[in-house]
Amino acid sequence: MTIDTSLQAVNDLLLSISKSSVALLSETSAHILGAGGKRLRPRLVLLAHAAVGGDDFERVVPLAAAVEIIHTATLVHDDINDHGTLRRGRETVNSRWGGTFALLTGDYMFTRAYLLMAPFSSELNTILAQAALDLVEGETLQIKAARQGELDRDLYYEIISKKTASLFAAAVELGAAAGNASPEWRAALREYAFNLGLAFQITDDVLDLVADTHQLGKNAGIDVAQGRGIAVALDGNHGSDHGSGSGSDGAAVAALAALSQDTAPGPLKESLIDAGINGDALDAAIQKGRGKAAELAARAAVCLDALPPSAACDELRALADQVVRRDH
Amino acid sequence: MTIDTSLQAVNDLLLSISKSSVALLSETSAHILGAGGKRLRPRLVLLAHAAVGGDDFERVVPLAAAVEIIHTATLVHDDINDHGTLRRGRETVNSRWGGTFALLTGDYMFTRAYLLMAPFSSELNTILAQAALDLVEGETLQIKAARQGELDRDLYYEIISKKTASLFAAAVELGAAAGNASPEWRAALREYAFNLGLAFQITDDVLDLVADTHQLGKNAGIDVAQGRGIAVALDGNHGSDHGSGSGSDGAAVAALAALSQDTAPGPLKESLIDAGINGDALDAAIQKGRGKAAELAARAAVCLDALPPSAACDELRALADQVVRRDH
Repeated sequence: MTIDTSLQAVNDLLLSISKSSVALLSETSAHILGAGGKRLRPRLVLLAHAAVGGDDFERVVPLAAAVEIIHTATLVHDDINDHGTLRRGRETVNSRWGGTFALLTGDYMFTRAYLLMAPFSSELNTILAQAALDLVEGETLQIKAARQGELDRDLYYEIISKKTASLFAAAVELGAAAGNASPEWRAALREYAFNLGLAFQITDDVLDLVADTHQLGKNAGIDVAQGRGIAVALDGNHGSDHGSGSGSDGAAVAALAALSQDTAPGPLKESLIDAGINGDALDAAIQKGRGKAAELAARAAVCLDALPPSAACDELRALADQVVRRDH
Repeated sequence: MTIDTSLQAVNDLLLSISKSSVALLSETSAHILGAGGKRLRPRLVLLAHAAVGGDDFERVVPLAAAVEIIHTATLVHDDINDHGTLRRGRETVNSRWGGTFALLTGDYMFTRAYLLMAPFSSELNTILAQAALDLVEGETLQIKAARQGELDRDLYYEIISKKTASLFAAAVELGAAAGNASPEWRAALREYAFNLGLAFQITDDVLDLVADTHQLGKNAGIDVAQGRGIAVALDGNHGSDHGSGSGSDGAAVAALAALSQDTAPGPLKESLIDAGINGDALDAAIQKGRGKAAELAARAAVCLDALPPSAACDELRALADQVVRRDH
């Protein structure tokens, strides 16, 4: 099996897993699992497996699917909390079937992923369970921070570490562990994926500010309303350089948060400028965020030098570049 | 370790598991996990383990805790969907912290249970994952049936099998499997617990009709509003005797469902009689429900005859009696 045929097998498995004896759950989960998406996390599982010399793709396909299911379950639940109406270019489960069935669809997907993982070793289950826990904690931190208007750089960094980077790291670790990678290779891949995840999320938060809903295939401006995009826009220099530079400007954050609550989906940046926020400062902040993402992506790529050269390794390196250059 | 000290260890573990690096999640999950409750499912895990001659209670305690966490997570999510305000004598997480944090608290508990189970064998994980899946499917079926007013006896039976009996069966199977029980003993315990679960749920649904909120420690009348209590009140003879007898009366079900939506928490039976529902017929239906529960409990007890006599077995037998005689 190649990476591409394995990814196809992941897609097939995701669709077959949507099938429930309860017709409604089959419908809702096929709606969201069948909508595609970037499939970045399954790709990471498969590529990491190949990069450490693994060739048991049949065994790795369910792991890749489980990671994608957990990710998608959290999206379904996030869309309830965020009142999102569009996801992966489709109506959200919440918008189409209502909050109650969206909640149960997310639960269904969590339990499906758990069942899919049950045949695997304790080691692999621990990796995924820990990441799933991080996801929930990260989402909680984010919503709490947004409500209290208390987001600062360190907290932003903690949130995106838990909410995004953690599952990226788990994805490569699952692929590598299933390929019996050495501890060194596993650690290198984890560091690669963790940095990649941070770069991915910062880019996501910048796109949330500058792109529009149609382009993203999900509601733009929502993450800013949640207080996440704000931190990167105002204060891009979080990450490894904790402590240097000033914290984000509380008053500006509060103003942005208040504004964004009333903002219709669309490029938020324009609304902010219309509302009198300094456009040049915003542009500079966005550039800073883009720069930080590029720096983290570059740091991710360097980690791959610890691995032997391979086509999979080249693809992982290319991913780091794509993740920060994307426009949706 | 005795059963009682093991149960105390389960409670301690539940509290230590409430601890999250995110303070809010520690608060919410300690609120509900620390509220006590009957701890019936952990007790089933421990007693089944003892009944098959197992004595490794230290190993079984986390299994018992995981079952209780999964159960409690579904309660937290159910309380969002049902707008319940009282649970285990305390304010619900939903009522105190709002729907968003209640959703995340349920998710947190699901992932905590998964992490707790990760060190155990694939066999044990498969048992719990399958039951968790059943729980979600059962809850979905119930809400869908209530909304469409299409609950009949077979569907009621399917719902309580998935929503309640399935986790009871998983509980004893986990305890028995961890005690290396023979397939015969495991099957006997499963059948015991499955019937016990049905008896428990039918009793719950009857209590939902006749008891009040204070007595139950959770909102009375809610399950009727969800359409579940209706079936047992109008048509107690579901279960093994599928096909005999008539289905429930659709018009009466619809009238009850419409009524119950506007009913304040309190003994629903009185409101129904006030509203002109025939009190004698209702009493007869309630008696029929009680009778069916007693019959299922007796059937559960008989299954235990396949096991060697023991104090644990006696306790399991006593449970079957308590479950249908309780008033809360």
